[in-house]
Amino acid sequence: MTKNTKVNAAILIIGNEILSGRTQDTNTSTLANWLNSIGVKVNEVRVIPDIEKKIIETLKVLKKENNYVFTTGGIGPTHDDITAESVSKAFGAKYEIHKEAYKILETYYKPGEFNEGRQKMVWMPENAELILNPTSGAPGFSVENVFCLPGVPSILKSMLGGLKNRIVGGEPILSHTISLRTVESEIANSLTKVQDQNEDVEIGSYPFFHAGKLGVSIVLRSENQSKINSCNSQILEFVKQKKIEIVDR
Amino acid sequence: MTKNTKVNAAILIIGNEILSGRTQDTNTSTLANWLNSIGVKVNEVRVIPDIEKKIIETLKVLKKENNYVFTTGGIGPTHDDITAESVSKAFGAKYEIHKEAYKILETYYKPGEFNEGRQKMVWMPENAELILNPTSGAPGFSVENVFCLPGVPSILKSMLGGLKNRIVGGEPILSHTISLRTVESEIANSLTKVQDQNEDVEIGSYPFFHAGKLGVSIVLRSENQSKINSCNSQILEFVKQKKIEIVDR
Repeated sequence: MTKNTKVNAAILIIGNEILSGRTQDTNTSTLANWLNSIGVKVNEVRVIPDIEKKIIETLKVLKKENNYVFTTGGIGPTHDDITAESVSKAFGAKYEIHKEAYKILETYYKPGEFNEGRQKMVWMPENAELILNPTSGAPGFSVENVFCLPGVPSILKSMLGGLKNRIVGGEPILSHTISLRTVESEIANSLTKVQDQNEDVEIGSYPFFHAGKLGVSIVLRSENQSKINSCNSQILEFVKQKKIEIVDR
Repeated sequence: MTKNTKVNAAILIIGNEILSGRTQDTNTSTLANWLNSIGVKVNEVRVIPDIEKKIIETLKVLKKENNYVFTTGGIGPTHDDITAESVSKAFGAKYEIHKEAYKILETYYKPGEFNEGRQKMVWMPENAELILNPTSGAPGFSVENVFCLPGVPSILKSMLGGLKNRIVGGEPILSHTISLRTVESEIANSLTKVQDQNEDVEIGSYPFFHAGKLGVSIVLRSENQSKINSCNSQILEFVKQKKIEIVDR
């Protein structure tokens, strides 16, 4: 894969705690922001339960449809941590002790503390490549284009730095935001015209309510800065004509 | 559908702003908590971009596999609001002016303010049933088992009350949490044994880091309170044996 091609990814959040509403997922926005910054566009996110069949089926679809798949959750020591075994099955790979991971955890824990529960965390698909974990020892892993990360947000974040060189992105996706003191319906038609004239720029319109006042943020996204600039000028033109106030946000 | 059967749902978040990482989705946890409280289990969540083909394809799958589908986002007045038209196409239904919605917005806005942009919000699939919006006027709608809600979290929340009588849930899903001052690997084996003896209770194990200390929350979920109680007793037994501290959280 060379630069300049479009590179995309799917995020697969594995965990009953998100589906029950008990836990608010924050890994999606962490991963999406990071991926965008290295030129990878997120095509889709799925949240699924800790059910082996569902994980395998979903992985098979996503790894085929996307350049990269990032999973979060299910790689800890307890009975509901079934991601590594499910990934093995999705690839038809053996599920076995990863020698390097074993050495890492044997060194990480004090003598006698590398117990049976912890040893579960070194079982991975054969030929998995490790993703090092500077926070809590137990590594994640990748197989082909699937990268498996933990569910705990602070640990996941700490592992992204080590991944950077293994993900080949396209052109970074640039964005520009214009926030206006208006409501969407006042600018809808003008915005449609600008979108029609700028097909390579993705224009999003997002109403907000901040400090007691309504407004709309217009977000322009493209790999091409000059196309964003031209689109921005066209928007500023109708904003001026309509005497709409531009606000900081 | 009668009570006592298992009822499930999928949530479909439509919006580029979630996939770009710009906006943190909170509608999933709002909907999931509310659905759980009325006995509907969330099977799956998907986040997809504002692309008509993707919305139609995804809806076709989800509405078949689930008792209910809830979509959020894409029902406003701007060019990137394409949910209503996409839902029409997914059902092979006409996309047309909904007379009742038209009347509601005609009354809601001051004379002259019900402009072309706002009129877009009354276009819906034929035979759509409205979901009233006590916050900002423009209603959501449902077609068969698909319920379309707005993306703005405060508006979405305000519309759930009006939906309650239209969703027939199963037995409410009960849950009980036990938080322990321990790490997962210390309890993994004991917890596996309890799970093996309690197949009807979903046992989740979630590490946390709070006020400078590590801990694990064990979450028991089932439609049956006595099964939760029995499972809880078995956990408290090994917790006592292992002299693990129970903490409030």
